Amino acid sequence: MDQLFPRMLRFAQFGAGRIGAIHAANLASTPDTQLLYIVDVNTDAARALAVRHGAQVAGVEAALADPRVDAVIIASSTDTHADLAIAAARAGKAIFCEKPIDLSLKRVDACLAAVKKAKVPMFVGFNRRFDPSFAALHARIARGDIGAVEQVIISSRDPGLPPISYLKVSGGQFRDMTIHDFDMARWLLGEEPVELFAYGSCLVDPAVAKVGDTDSAMVVMKTASGKLCHINNSRRASYGYDQRLEVHGSKGRLTAGNRTATTVELADASAVSGDKPLFFFLERYADAYRAELAAFVQAVSNRQPLPVTAHDGRQAIVLAEAAVKSLQTGRPVKI
Amino acid sequence: MDQLFPRMLRFAQFGAGRIGAIHAANLASTPDTQLLYIVDVNTDAARALAVRHGAQVAGVEAALADPRVDAVIIASSTDTHADLAIAAARAGKAIFCEKPIDLSLKRVDACLAAVKKAKVPMFVGFNRRFDPSFAALHARIARGDIGAVEQVIISSRDPGLPPISYLKVSGGQFRDMTIHDFDMARWLLGEEPVELFAYGSCLVDPAVAKVGDTDSAMVVMKTASGKLCHINNSRRASYGYDQRLEVHGSKGRLTAGNRTATTVELADASAVSGDKPLFFFLERYADAYRAELAAFVQAVSNRQPLPVTAHDGRQAIVLAEAAVKSLQTGRPVKI
Amino acid sequence: MDQLFPRMLRFAQFGAGRIGAIHAANLASTPDTQLLYIVDVNTDAARALAVRHGAQVAGVEAALADPRVDAVIIASSTDTHADLAIAAARAGKAIFCEKPIDLSLKRVDACLAAVKKAKVPMFVGFNRRFDPSFAALHARIARGDIGAVEQVIISSRDPGLPPISYLKVSGGQFRDMTIHDFDMARWLLGEEPVELFAYGSCLVDPAVAKVGDTDSAMVVMKTASGKLCHINNSRRASYGYDQRLEVHGSKGRLTAGNRTATTVELADASAVSGDKPLFFFLERYADAYRAELAAFVQAVSNRQPLPVTAHDGRQAIVLAEAAVKSLQTGRPVKI
Amino acid sequence: MDQLFPRMLRFAQFGAGRIGAIHAANLASTPDTQLLYIVDVNTDAARALAVRHGAQVAGVEAALADPRVDAVIIASSTDTHADLAIAAARAGKAIFCEKPIDLSLKRVDACLAAVKKAKVPMFVGFNRRFDPSFAALHARIARGDIGAVEQVIISSRDPGLPPISYLKVSGGQFRDMTIHDFDMARWLLGEEPVELFAYGSCLVDPAVAKVGDTDSAMVVMKTASGKLCHINNSRRASYGYDQRLEVHGSKGRLTAGNRTATTVELADASAVSGDKPLFFFLERYADAYRAELAAFVQAVSNRQPLPVTAHDGRQAIVLAEAAVKSLQTGRPVKI
Repeated sequence: MDQLFPRMLRFAQFGAGRIGAIHAANLASTPDTQLLYIVDVNTDAARALAVRHGAQVAGVEAALADPRVDAVIIASSTDTHADLAIAAARAGKAIFCEKPIDLSLKRVDACLAAVKKAKVPMFVGFNRRFDPSFAALHARIARGDIGAVEQVIISSRDPGLPPISYLKVSGGQFRDMTIHDFDMARWLLGEEPVELFAYGSCLVDPAVAKVGDTDSAMVVMKTASGKLCHINNSRRASYGYDQRLEVHGSKGRLTAGNRTATTVELADASAVSGDKPLFFFLERYADAYRAELAAFVQAVSNRQPLPVTAHDGRQAIVLAEAAVKSLQTGRPVKI
Repeated sequence: MDQLFPRMLRFAQFGAGRIGAIHAANLASTPDTQLLYIVDVNTDAARALAVRHGAQVAGVEAALADPRVDAVIIASSTDTHADLAIAAARAGKAIFCEKPIDLSLKRVDACLAAVKKAKVPMFVGFNRRFDPSFAALHARIARGDIGAVEQVIISSRDPGLPPISYLKVSGGQFRDMTIHDFDMARWLLGEEPVELFAYGSCLVDPAVAKVGDTDSAMVVMKTASGKLCHINNSRRASYGYDQRLEVHGSKGRLTAGNRTATTVELADASAVSGDKPLFFFLERYADAYRAELAAFVQAVSNRQPLPVTAHDGRQAIVLAEAAVKSLQTGRPVKI
Repeated sequence: MDQLFPRMLRFAQFGAGRIGAIHAANLASTPDTQLLYIVDVNTDAARALAVRHGAQVAGVEAALADPRVDAVIIASSTDTHADLAIAAARAGKAIFCEKPIDLSLKRVDACLAAVKKAKVPMFVGFNRRFDPSFAALHARIARGDIGAVEQVIISSRDPGLPPISYLKVSGGQFRDMTIHDFDMARWLLGEEPVELFAYGSCLVDPAVAKVGDTDSAMVVMKTASGKLCHINNSRRASYGYDQRLEVHGSKGRLTAGNRTATTVELADASAVSGDKPLFFFLERYADAYRAELAAFVQAVSNRQPLPVTAHDGRQAIVLAEAAVKSLQTGRPVKI
Repeated sequence: MDQLFPRMLRFAQFGAGRIGAIHAANLASTPDTQLLYIVDVNTDAARALAVRHGAQVAGVEAALADPRVDAVIIASSTDTHADLAIAAARAGKAIFCEKPIDLSLKRVDACLAAVKKAKVPMFVGFNRRFDPSFAALHARIARGDIGAVEQVIISSRDPGLPPISYLKVSGGQFRDMTIHDFDMARWLLGEEPVELFAYGSCLVDPAVAKVGDTDSAMVVMKTASGKLCHINNSRRASYGYDQRLEVHGSKGRLTAGNRTATTVELADASAVSGDKPLFFFLERYADAYRAELAAFVQAVSNRQPLPVTAHDGRQAIVLAEAAVKSLQTGRPVKI
């Protein structure tokens, strides 16, 4: 009977900004789901998004109080994630939460405790795990294409510097940007890093240093069994969003590169040239955003384990904290 | 006022098969459009598609008689295209017609006459012009990246043989398969071919020869100014759908290659290997199907010229007919 | 005993021009060979090359009369090839002859008759068969990587137009340029073409048309079993020497592309760009020239069959003649 | 007058092993050079190489005492480099010395002092600087293609583990293998690293750990201005010799990849696959070995500054020592 009439999964969404608009649109094209509420302090934005997708504007309490709501999408500003997740957990809703859960590990742990107590599933939006190329690379490691993983190299470079006003509240490059790469590292290594060492520099714009942040970073990590991982980051890549993985194992190497808008190449008297990588995360990870939401819906609907959990969200923050400490002390940091 | 309240473009669609399902789904995600009717002799298929997209099932006459219907999508079987287009033209509807208009040039011309008389816009679904890579290549020719076009080379190879039952009614390889390449050739050359010569062979399966068809073909064409074009076709490419363009001009070469599902590469003791091309037209041209419908909607809504016209549909058939004649006579054929 | 003291193979070389200099230098680095004589009507060129490689300058008769001479390299002007080959055959020397044997099929046949009568081995310098990529592609066809060959596509484009004075005596584009591609076609198809059709245009420079030649060409050919082949040629490729092979078989596709001087790629705000192909035949086929001479030396020294024979040289000319006739008559030509 | 009769540069070579054979053969094809002596304790090897290249076998003293000898090539075992270089310097010979000068920094400094006192030029064989792709990448940084250098990423992975007997005397992975990458790093950064941090693991073979060495390593370094560099090494890459550079600057990214023997690609039902990288340093750096010797000959002949000096040799060792210390202490090391 379940298969004839699959139960509709009903959502309330917190946040009607750029990333909220993406999740709402993806939900609209995900079968067997319904978006009931949009919640945002910016009521104009909330209304516009609600109208577009046939949802209602509501406040937090009302949305969580509706027993029809099965799940929430938390896509509001970072400082609200933990509180909303705790409230949703207490209301018994399944949680899809944008990364990071919080910039403070203490608050993250409070959130995880609430989720654990409420026994609700909580997914953290590490979208890159759902990029078709990265997901395929991970699957091929899992099926043994390169034997035992030995080294992981992650290149992750943004096309340009965000506004300094954003950087001030971002938590810094490691918590805001590298956090995605820390999740990739854990996922690809298949083991927890036990130590890391980080360098950070300000090479792109001196204004970044003035707000106490870095714009260029390199991290190395090792696991208990001696596997090694390197991450390089920059806030500037004139050629677009540079997102590549390289994994070396006992039997070979797997790489996943950038995607381009077209396959057109021009050969002329100066060079053979092709497209730059897709511009930024909205373009590069459009498929990934769709796939992560579909994965959440499927797991929650079928009461299966989530492919990314609140614990994963916590561990990425632990690594980011360690990187901050390494940068501050100039020493490697045990995890 | 038009811009504040853009007029909704309302459709009736003929055909609820595989390609009809694609167009209906694309219409559903195209802003400012509405699908009113699905028409198909297979009433189960019509009903299923209608339910999915909030349309009604109707007959041809009823659909065309509804004054709310602005435009039709003709995605039914090839032998019905011309009659439906004529009826739609008489009813004053804008026409989006799947290729080919008809396998008989005489009927094509009758259709074009009716369309001309009715002064309705008619678009023929040469989807490949809307593939992001092919469209970008064409735009770069137009902006002068390679100077004057001199030679065009089109590789167009299907992953596998269709059923023999389909081949029997397909009109033959040149009318069914090469027709897309003939359109590409005209579009890229920027001049009409004035002569062509064609070879066809049966190399994939002797059953193809038994129904009087070929499965492997090579065509060369020239234009009045001496530009040259080559097309190669096969009904079998074990590695997937091979769709590539190569254009040589006085200042350089432009190429557009295949697309892959991922960018993953494996380097191991045997080779460095990557993904095969996307499997077939549904995968490769998914973006193109979306873009061609959007282009039709935009042109019709804004009363602008269509980017592909019924005349283009006719000319591709003229070239296909010439290729058939060349194959039969063993001689080059003037066009 | 032979293996302990391998017999030295001693050469006389006719021709001290550009290609002669290449062969002489390659001979110098081929073990178990010695260059005894350089023969050239340009005595300064002959002397310079002879001094460089420790050879003597001589006339044709003297060189052929020396019983120490085992083999000759014919790298003089095309119109002297046949006579020199006949003389060398009568003198019992093994022959390495640059392509073409002659522009006249009648004289080619006279030459082949003399060679046959003298029972000497005669090699024709189709260097491209020895390009590492092309040779590897051919070997992989032979070992069955793509099953039965069905279609061959040859792209062969020069970086720029030779002097008109050269074109006047070249025999025309098909005999001078396409001849290499005709040899590639026969080699890759593994069957003789039985018919061809050719288009030729003058698109690069009207001066070419004034001397009755073409600068742009497309050929299609078929074999008795229905295999198809396409060749495209241009005398202009602003991006360098474009030399690519593509072979389709029942089980897959093999391609061999251009080579570059470096693997450097630049990604910047405009594109991702890499090297153009190597400039022209001296750069692209440097390895091939070395390898063909080594293959000749090895086969003659070990009395093994030659990998390319005078018959191959003849057949390429037969195809070139057919292409000329097709161009002149506007009809396909049986071979 | 110098240009009409360029002075011949005459060499004595120490070492007749694998790398010695390469240098001797390259010298043989370098114009205006002559190899007078081969010196090796293995007199059979010395004799064979001497016969092959028309040189004489001699002892160290005799070779250095001959006033005709202008320059020496030191290609003997590592532990003899410093003494031979000191002796050659005292004899007033120009020195081409294989890397490393010595495993002990103290002995390196003694050698540099002797060279300085004797005012002879000393070149250290960092062959990779002369790889066509790496040299072109460096030249493009120098001409400003990517603006100011910000980050350097060096991937350097051997195809397989050397014998444990070799590892025992090699000085360890950082001194034996990473030393090349340390030189690349200095060359590409255009600034001296002021600190580094190193991880090393034994992942390939436990026998490596038993002799106190590592087989897998990751290093990060920074310069005074904050530029960052990462090196990753492994003694095992099943797919061949992996040698890649990636340099990020303010205006773009330059990369240099591996080279392959051919450009052949196979597309079949499983994948699109091409050649593995060239197997090891003899294949990959054949051009580089030729070019470095030519650069040495040209600089010494024309009394120009050497492109790589003994100081460069020393600095690479300083970095290797720092990496060893970092690995031993688990701390970053100031340089």
